[in-house]
Amino acid sequence: MDTGEIANTPEPPYYAVIFTSVLGPDHDGYYETAARMAELVAESPGYLGHESARGEDRLGITVAYFRDEDSIRTWRDNAEHAAARARGRAEWYDGFELRIAKVERAYGFRRAE
Amino acid sequence: MDTGEIANTPEPPYYAVIFTSVLGPDHDGYYETAARMAELVAESPGYLGHESARGEDRLGITVAYFRDEDSIRTWRDNAEHAAARARGRAEWYDGFELRIAKVERAYGFRRAE
Repeated sequence: MDTGEIANTPEPPYYAVIFTSVLGPDHDGYYETAARMAELVAESPGYLGHESARGEDRLGITVAYFRDEDSIRTWRDNAEHAAARARGRAEWYDGFELRIAKVERAYGFRRAE
Repeated sequence: MDTGEIANTPEPPYYAVIFTSVLGPDHDGYYETAARMAELVAESPGYLGHESARGEDRLGITVAYFRDEDSIRTWRDNAEHAAARARGRAEWYDGFELRIAKVERAYGFRRAE
């Protein structure tokens, strides 16, 4: 989930799950798990897309977009996702903040080829 | 705005401005302007904090947090910020998406020292 593109989300309203994290010095297995989570979330009902970036300072932001709050709960309750979260907290992250937000307005720009 | 820490935001509700962008190959002056905007937004009324990350693939996410919609409008109407946005669109970005969202719930974790 550390590379990607701008998500092609529909017209608002929809939901954003903003996950900001700081990776600790030891994070064996983190990138493999993140890639697996990116595959898995894309199959979750109501998923609309996600974006992710992590800089050299180890601060990363992933924003996943969902149709509604039920879709967020379904993803939260996925057993493999829950196991990955538990490992993140126990092993990988020095800290994180998760914010659930309702997207009210959006606009974008794509440069013509 | 490309390095930083997890923002210490208050209890929800508050607002998030999620700005996802792809830097183009030519971005002279971008990092200087981004640093200046990070200084400037911190002085804007109702600003609560921001987080920013950009990976090697040039996808970056900046999330700025504000007390309310009025605070977002005040920052949008800042003349120096407006000039930077115009330059971003004309010169720096291959694309971006800006989403305005109301943060409804949040929780975090910080590892004990």
